[in-house]
Amino acid sequence: MKAIRVGLIGHKFMGRAHTHAYTDLPLFFDPGVEVVKQVLCSNEPGVEAAARRWGWENWTLDWKKVVADPEVDLVDIAAPSAIHAEVAIAAARAGKHVFCEKPLALNLADAEKMVEEAKKAGVVTMIGFNYRRVPALALARQLIQEGEIGDIFHFRGCYQQGWLVDPGFPLAWRLRKAAAGYGSHGDLGAHVVDLARFLVGELQEVCCFQETFIRQRPKPEFEDGLVAKAGKEMGEVDVDDASAFLARFRGRKTMGYFEVTRYGNGHRNQNRIEINGSKGSLIFDMEKMNELEVYLGSDPANLQGFRRVQVGEGVHPYMANWFPAGHIIGYGDTFVNQAFDLITAIKEGKAASPDFLDGLKCQQVLEAADRSAHSRQWETVPAK
Amino acid sequence: MKAIRVGLIGHKFMGRAHTHAYTDLPLFFDPGVEVVKQVLCSNEPGVEAAARRWGWENWTLDWKKVVADPEVDLVDIAAPSAIHAEVAIAAARAGKHVFCEKPLALNLADAEKMVEEAKKAGVVTMIGFNYRRVPALALARQLIQEGEIGDIFHFRGCYQQGWLVDPGFPLAWRLRKAAAGYGSHGDLGAHVVDLARFLVGELQEVCCFQETFIRQRPKPEFEDGLVAKAGKEMGEVDVDDASAFLARFRGRKTMGYFEVTRYGNGHRNQNRIEINGSKGSLIFDMEKMNELEVYLGSDPANLQGFRRVQVGEGVHPYMANWFPAGHIIGYGDTFVNQAFDLITAIKEGKAASPDFLDGLKCQQVLEAADRSAHSRQWETVPAK
Amino acid sequence: MKAIRVGLIGHKFMGRAHTHAYTDLPLFFDPGVEVVKQVLCSNEPGVEAAARRWGWENWTLDWKKVVADPEVDLVDIAAPSAIHAEVAIAAARAGKHVFCEKPLALNLADAEKMVEEAKKAGVVTMIGFNYRRVPALALARQLIQEGEIGDIFHFRGCYQQGWLVDPGFPLAWRLRKAAAGYGSHGDLGAHVVDLARFLVGELQEVCCFQETFIRQRPKPEFEDGLVAKAGKEMGEVDVDDASAFLARFRGRKTMGYFEVTRYGNGHRNQNRIEINGSKGSLIFDMEKMNELEVYLGSDPANLQGFRRVQVGEGVHPYMANWFPAGHIIGYGDTFVNQAFDLITAIKEGKAASPDFLDGLKCQQVLEAADRSAHSRQWETVPAK
Amino acid sequence: MKAIRVGLIGHKFMGRAHTHAYTDLPLFFDPGVEVVKQVLCSNEPGVEAAARRWGWENWTLDWKKVVADPEVDLVDIAAPSAIHAEVAIAAARAGKHVFCEKPLALNLADAEKMVEEAKKAGVVTMIGFNYRRVPALALARQLIQEGEIGDIFHFRGCYQQGWLVDPGFPLAWRLRKAAAGYGSHGDLGAHVVDLARFLVGELQEVCCFQETFIRQRPKPEFEDGLVAKAGKEMGEVDVDDASAFLARFRGRKTMGYFEVTRYGNGHRNQNRIEINGSKGSLIFDMEKMNELEVYLGSDPANLQGFRRVQVGEGVHPYMANWFPAGHIIGYGDTFVNQAFDLITAIKEGKAASPDFLDGLKCQQVLEAADRSAHSRQWETVPAK
Repeated sequence: MKAIRVGLIGHKFMGRAHTHAYTDLPLFFDPGVEVVKQVLCSNEPGVEAAARRWGWENWTLDWKKVVADPEVDLVDIAAPSAIHAEVAIAAARAGKHVFCEKPLALNLADAEKMVEEAKKAGVVTMIGFNYRRVPALALARQLIQEGEIGDIFHFRGCYQQGWLVDPGFPLAWRLRKAAAGYGSHGDLGAHVVDLARFLVGELQEVCCFQETFIRQRPKPEFEDGLVAKAGKEMGEVDVDDASAFLARFRGRKTMGYFEVTRYGNGHRNQNRIEINGSKGSLIFDMEKMNELEVYLGSDPANLQGFRRVQVGEGVHPYMANWFPAGHIIGYGDTFVNQAFDLITAIKEGKAASPDFLDGLKCQQVLEAADRSAHSRQWETVPAK
Repeated sequence: MKAIRVGLIGHKFMGRAHTHAYTDLPLFFDPGVEVVKQVLCSNEPGVEAAARRWGWENWTLDWKKVVADPEVDLVDIAAPSAIHAEVAIAAARAGKHVFCEKPLALNLADAEKMVEEAKKAGVVTMIGFNYRRVPALALARQLIQEGEIGDIFHFRGCYQQGWLVDPGFPLAWRLRKAAAGYGSHGDLGAHVVDLARFLVGELQEVCCFQETFIRQRPKPEFEDGLVAKAGKEMGEVDVDDASAFLARFRGRKTMGYFEVTRYGNGHRNQNRIEINGSKGSLIFDMEKMNELEVYLGSDPANLQGFRRVQVGEGVHPYMANWFPAGHIIGYGDTFVNQAFDLITAIKEGKAASPDFLDGLKCQQVLEAADRSAHSRQWETVPAK
Repeated sequence: MKAIRVGLIGHKFMGRAHTHAYTDLPLFFDPGVEVVKQVLCSNEPGVEAAARRWGWENWTLDWKKVVADPEVDLVDIAAPSAIHAEVAIAAARAGKHVFCEKPLALNLADAEKMVEEAKKAGVVTMIGFNYRRVPALALARQLIQEGEIGDIFHFRGCYQQGWLVDPGFPLAWRLRKAAAGYGSHGDLGAHVVDLARFLVGELQEVCCFQETFIRQRPKPEFEDGLVAKAGKEMGEVDVDDASAFLARFRGRKTMGYFEVTRYGNGHRNQNRIEINGSKGSLIFDMEKMNELEVYLGSDPANLQGFRRVQVGEGVHPYMANWFPAGHIIGYGDTFVNQAFDLITAIKEGKAASPDFLDGLKCQQVLEAADRSAHSRQWETVPAK
Repeated sequence: MKAIRVGLIGHKFMGRAHTHAYTDLPLFFDPGVEVVKQVLCSNEPGVEAAARRWGWENWTLDWKKVVADPEVDLVDIAAPSAIHAEVAIAAARAGKHVFCEKPLALNLADAEKMVEEAKKAGVVTMIGFNYRRVPALALARQLIQEGEIGDIFHFRGCYQQGWLVDPGFPLAWRLRKAAAGYGSHGDLGAHVVDLARFLVGELQEVCCFQETFIRQRPKPEFEDGLVAKAGKEMGEVDVDDASAFLARFRGRKTMGYFEVTRYGNGHRNQNRIEINGSKGSLIFDMEKMNELEVYLGSDPANLQGFRRVQVGEGVHPYMANWFPAGHIIGYGDTFVNQAFDLITAIKEGKAASPDFLDGLKCQQVLEAADRSAHSRQWETVPAK
């Protein structure tokens, strides 16, 4: 294999993040194969200009052309969730490797189908949980896997954004069930659930409650990606504004707590993870993405305390490839790390991680929690 | 009234904290009345030496003598929870004002009786939720009451200690239901619930789960207050090690989360409170007791962020009475603030706050949560 | 010796802090001897009320009576700097042990005389550098002494207060050379210099510059301790507002930087100490008095980082005597620790530390630095 | 102008950082002109592979070809300091715009010549002080310029790295005067001095001392950019390991302190800037590059405190072009911001900032400070 040629669907927030990843990859990593930005696709006219500016060889308005293009090895889906399933399944059937942004699909049936079809096709799949590629979280996993933290008593994940505090913010697509599936529960919750699975393990049962603080919002008179402008007519928010659930993990005594909100006033993008184990504890906060706080009970009694580890050394995951120690990376760079892992997997013909099955399992948890929010009962997460 | 004479029951951790409060009161506050350390009581022989060292006029081994003593105006109960009800009721009936350490009682029936008897006797009561007297938390309440934070979307209270991580730690009285009622749920949970009531308001329903991570522990061969030494025989822990619950508040949309644990490895005494409102947010952490983080959405757009307010100015609650700005106070000093409020209430013949009724309401929440942990259902908190 | 009877001169900020120390001592420490608050002295009428409220046996307006009082074992000087020398020398000659608040004296000649007379009299002396009794700083010293930090490359001490930023603040006594000797240089600088000596060692030469940002201030129409009210007439500030100096330590390559200011806007009482050594580093900040940040180069490569040690465990200096782990102490409590060390020294007939000689050595450094500020040269600190 | 074609000299740390900047520029900014990575140059054979991997059109081993190349509009010098002057002067004479990494030159004469020749040629120049493009520091400047901080009393800049603590680290080129000019003084000091000029203003006089803690180090048996391997022979370090200086600013009372060290054990790349003004204060730390701490004295008395501003909103400098609020940028991204400013200046035919004159002025300060370290006197910085 001399090159991996990418067809990217989507040119908004995630489309740009993925373009950035493929563009920067050769500057920092050597995956041993050329990565070609073959074709950029979107059903909006802006795609042509974006393709030119961002260095894509071609562009198209029709994703089916991407899937059918013999020049494309990897289909990267960074388009709205509603079309994930259709595109991914078509791509897999066409023998393309498939990367899909989270959430995998809008419902479980679709997600299961995606897993199945990809398996049948034997293609490499990956789902876009880029937080696994934050070096501090990759280090957290290493420490846990190596037993440094011991048995885990508590997992707490709290993802707070605050952009909905303003009642004048319009009823954008992320607030409409038909387009987004869930509100904060799916958007932010998917990240926290995936990190729980990445760091601790599978979930067994959950008990959830949700709230929609502001039910009536102005319908947008204009909307484009994350940008929306309020119109005069009002409409009803039919997704959650915030979601919180208790959880038990499978096969262990770990107590879990998951909370996501778009009403965490003051927080732009805080994803705070806390883990307490029998040998140590970990604290991570996305607002301080390059740090991991580590407590080790084995420290001398008079020197115990949380260490603020700057995860920017060559010994830390991914960081040997970046700038010298202490020169931090940004949010966009986590996608470069992710692209490296994906491209490496494809090149070596191995499974990538997290794959579609991880996406499905994440969704099973979210769906059980959502069910619980309505049943007001503990709900079981399927074992497989 | 020229003097208020105190009879203190208990001479361990809390006995010392209360002695400290009465001793330091005149150094920092002028309640307009003399406070006399009349008699120290405990059923252990060490009480005599303690009384002498700590400056109490008298001592006794029998709490009934304190209650009967005409020289005593205020009975302060800092003894094990199991005798709270009996002593408090006797004291109230004897016409004494009564301060009682939390939890008010081991069960609701006792707690209700205490409220009733105190009311009948017309005495001033107070329950020992000293965290209300942390200036940063008193400031938090001020801000909320004045509307600076707006409508409250989220309340999170997480109280973590880590002393039970060691499996060799003995089966001390705090781990035995008969002596302590609950485990972390009552001990630490009472503080968090009271702060939720202090800062936000009444709770309506709760959904809880609990865990006992280590069930078998060595029975203590020696035990004295917080000190215990492991023996060779093993016994069973019959209280929770950790407890977490979701909550809805009464008459508002606030989502609540409460978690307490003695397995928060690395944390000695973290009581972290987070509040997100429509106009601002607050973060408090007992490990940084003299600080309050305040976010105000009304700040200029380019200067928004959490302020780290050092709550040590004359303009802050209680602080005008302490050392100059920036000279922080300690845990023990919160009891001095508390004593000032109690003594002032008694002197002025007014109700103190929090009183026994607050203690009862707190207990109703804890009991509903505990019920929920067993029923695996949402449980309602009594409205009154 | 059955009791040590104290005569305290001064009843303002420091007078109260010392009263607090003697009052609380028996609650937390057992020095094996009774400490009696024998007599409180001040030349202001308020002293009588203060003595009564604070539990002193007697009071007087005349410090000479304290010095002459056969009932007094220890003279504690918490009065304005201008009378330190006279009182201390008289007390020593009268065979009293002497505690003196910093600065030792207004000039070197007086300070030398104080050392000499105390030595001749064979009495125990101590100077009031209470920061040595902050457990986190005592721990810092332990770590350095035990070699955990290795050879020290850098010492940085920056003490910031901000109360002079307001141009309307009056020309209080602390801004008048005749009353205070120096401005921030002496007041705050003394603490930083003492900590440098406590933690690292003796200084050899210094190069200083100072500034008085606002030269004209309203003369006070009323002044009492730290309280002052601006009048209408203006007067000239003749001390420094801020002072900064480079320093070399004696017999080692350590580079030192000392800065003190009353124009550190936003800081009420920040005393930030940083030490970098060949094996580790330390950071302390008085605003977070109960914490010490510790970096150890011997940590595993992927876990290196500054630990935030909560200095509140029984294993930490002084803390076994206070409340359980994680219950922080306050500024006032450092004076209790200090009183314990002083009383212990007197009881055991041993030298206390820091003593008058430490006060003198500190003053030699400050004087050399002040000389340097005027000569614009490096100036040598006397070797003894 | 349809395109600006870049010739880049250097392909190590800075060569990669600049390549990254030109590569990512069109993903985040629209400078209104195409930027072409025309030719990559280095005198080492690796340049060909680098050029191919990084997307440069051509490569060469000879910088003179770059300067002579009619296809090149902008010569970007990211090569060792020793050749800055020669290349920059040749480029300017050839009519090329010139970007030069800091330090401008190894000595003042060269630096002056560079300024002069660039002026004569009328080309746009820029010097590589990328920290000016950290959004938090750009915000700091905005606040100061707009008067939000008031008159500035104190500027403190402390840049700490720790990589020389290991005595086995070889005598790399950065430790040799002939190759590097200065040690930490020039390397790190240049950044701090430039930030002082950027944020506050010109310096008037300085008083410096320096230290070389470890004089003998193994000569490298291999050396390539930042990588070096110790050999067996020892050699002498002839530059400073650490440098500290006091400073007065021109035309204002501001007190300055500058410190740089490679022995700041525990710090990988801390560049801590503190500014105290009459209306507020600022704190920045490169380890938390996306934050600015801001104190405003105009806040309500009970809510004063340092705000932790996450400088990641659209209202903050540069950030409207990056990912949504709260998605932080990294060190490498500051070069993208810098490239945007440079390309915009060239396109619009305006002067860029900071230009070669800024580089010269920075060097004048460093040279005055170095002189002072040897003369042990205050030294004056030239007024122009």
